Amino acid sequence: MTSLASRAPRPTLALVGATGAVGSVTQQVLAMRADIWGEIRAAAAPEDAGTELTVCGRDVVVQHLTPEFFDGVDIALVDLPAPVAAVWAPIAAERGAVVIDNSSALRGDPDVPLVVPEVNPLQVRNRPRGIIANPGATTLTMIDALGVLHAGWELTELVVATYQAASGAGRAGMARLHDELEVVAGHRELGQQPGDVRRLIEFELGTESPFPAPLALNVLPWIGTAAEDGWTTEELKIRNETRKVLGLPDLRVSATCVRVPVISTHSVAVHATFARPIDVDEARQALVEAPAVVVLDDPETAEFPTPNDTVGSDPRFAGRLRQALDFPNTLDFFICGDNLRKGGALNMVQVAELVARDLAVVA
Amino acid sequence: MTSLASRAPRPTLALVGATGAVGSVTQQVLAMRADIWGEIRAAAAPEDAGTELTVCGRDVVVQHLTPEFFDGVDIALVDLPAPVAAVWAPIAAERGAVVIDNSSALRGDPDVPLVVPEVNPLQVRNRPRGIIANPGATTLTMIDALGVLHAGWELTELVVATYQAASGAGRAGMARLHDELEVVAGHRELGQQPGDVRRLIEFELGTESPFPAPLALNVLPWIGTAAEDGWTTEELKIRNETRKVLGLPDLRVSATCVRVPVISTHSVAVHATFARPIDVDEARQALVEAPAVVVLDDPETAEFPTPNDTVGSDPRFAGRLRQALDFPNTLDFFICGDNLRKGGALNMVQVAELVARDLAVVA
Repeated sequence: MTSLASRAPRPTLALVGATGAVGSVTQQVLAMRADIWGEIRAAAAPEDAGTELTVCGRDVVVQHLTPEFFDGVDIALVDLPAPVAAVWAPIAAERGAVVIDNSSALRGDPDVPLVVPEVNPLQVRNRPRGIIANPGATTLTMIDALGVLHAGWELTELVVATYQAASGAGRAGMARLHDELEVVAGHRELGQQPGDVRRLIEFELGTESPFPAPLALNVLPWIGTAAEDGWTTEELKIRNETRKVLGLPDLRVSATCVRVPVISTHSVAVHATFARPIDVDEARQALVEAPAVVVLDDPETAEFPTPNDTVGSDPRFAGRLRQALDFPNTLDFFICGDNLRKGGALNMVQVAELVARDLAVVA
Repeated sequence: MTSLASRAPRPTLALVGATGAVGSVTQQVLAMRADIWGEIRAAAAPEDAGTELTVCGRDVVVQHLTPEFFDGVDIALVDLPAPVAAVWAPIAAERGAVVIDNSSALRGDPDVPLVVPEVNPLQVRNRPRGIIANPGATTLTMIDALGVLHAGWELTELVVATYQAASGAGRAGMARLHDELEVVAGHRELGQQPGDVRRLIEFELGTESPFPAPLALNVLPWIGTAAEDGWTTEELKIRNETRKVLGLPDLRVSATCVRVPVISTHSVAVHATFARPIDVDEARQALVEAPAVVVLDDPETAEFPTPNDTVGSDPRFAGRLRQALDFPNTLDFFICGDNLRKGGALNMVQVAELVARDLAVVA
């Protein structure tokens, strides 16, 4: 890629939403990878304009977001709330940037590909609107493991329950969980009477929160907003995004999304059914050989993945692989992935690198 | 029941393991219910002998556990570790007590019924060994909701993922989670680097823990011990106990058991398939009418059950009811139940009351 890119001018990269939780991890991710970039710009909400960042050794001053910001930008990584992204992603594309959008706003658009480099890299070229969408963090937690297994055994059904971290609600989510932990710590009687944690936290911190109820010493089976028939938007996203990335529009999917008191890194309990008989040892070997999946799975030593061992690292950590005893062709497993890193920043940067290579070839 | 019981002498009740987490809740539960008991005795591990308790207004001194302790006891509630219970439950039965055993030691014995009063109350009479087993707390979290739904639509498949509380590991589990919370609180940088929570907790508290890894700011997909083929004993218990209580020896069950940083109250994400088409409104109505299930399920107001709203109360709290979009005859829902109360103490006391009524009829 470097040799190809070096023939063309180095692409100009824009980070939009650069001061958020994903934006901050994007800078860490860029610093760890080959620097193929020319100019790097950053934009964010008005209150953060003027902030000075260092991105890949360059001093970058965060700008106001204007249409002109995108003039001369080759690739824009956009991490904004969905309604804001729905406005700005098309503006950026109109100004000539290839947009990689981390919001859910355009993921369902048939003219916007949903790309995971380990699964469907060629889809980066299929961008009639000049926009590529990044899947949601929960889908990204499991999608390359599912891609590998689908390649071997043909996925037909997926039943998942999630254990999603506070950082899925951004910096505000992480801060709120830390605030709540400080309130409950030392109250050793808590967690035994109805609503005792809720009352103390609401008394100390108020009810204004990124979460619909206290998260410390609790789990919340409600992420996103109400969709039809009792489903949440988050649960339907998992269904739609998994189908789109794997190219399986009729894949049967059922998801229950639950927030847990973890700062960062989502986990998913997966029950996956295939068209062909699946052998656990062969499935494990396929995951071991997948470049971005680490298998931690030794029942003898109680080895298994956890979010705290995963957070801050690039791969997904999979374990607890077992044949579902009563379900033919079905594998159960547990998988953890850093929702800010692969679940956001890393996948965007990987897609940006594919686009840069594509632009260099075209140039 | 009182009128029947009043014709016979009031039964003598023994609490074995009276100083543990379940034993303590058993005393709270007994205090809230009609007092049908005569003498009440208590026994516990040697280091707790001599402890003075108040049980239903009676002063009770905790005794050493000896075979003679059971002489004259009508009903013994036994909450001991499984290998210890395997020894003492038969001794108690031999001395004439009807034993209600909360351990997993004898749940698989075909001559030991597994009783949930809301589901299979008549099984209390089928006790050839004089022993009745209490199901595990995770099974008890969902079993009466499943019983109601099975009665209406005939359950055929069950895929569950659990969110199990620290108190499943007893007082030591609750204390460890509180200890860990005190260590991590205020360290607002934690939860973003691989193993950062693990290193701090192990440095401050050591690695000796009721849990196989740090639980604060983490989730642990490992409960119980290794069984065959990568399964844990906890996951197989859910399969075996659900089949036995519902009388469905061929029910297809797959469970993933995960510990979460909640003090008390287990939650389960349930994906349940039935022989007949299930309508969500009819299913909700059936659960509303179930005496021990409270339905909290209004997507419009983001109403859903959480463990902290459930803990310390008797019913199971169910919500997030929805038709699985791609799976015929399948209902997804989320349910919370206090694992020390219904999941331990309350079910034992309810079974004891059924046995007391049975003994009174016989007398």
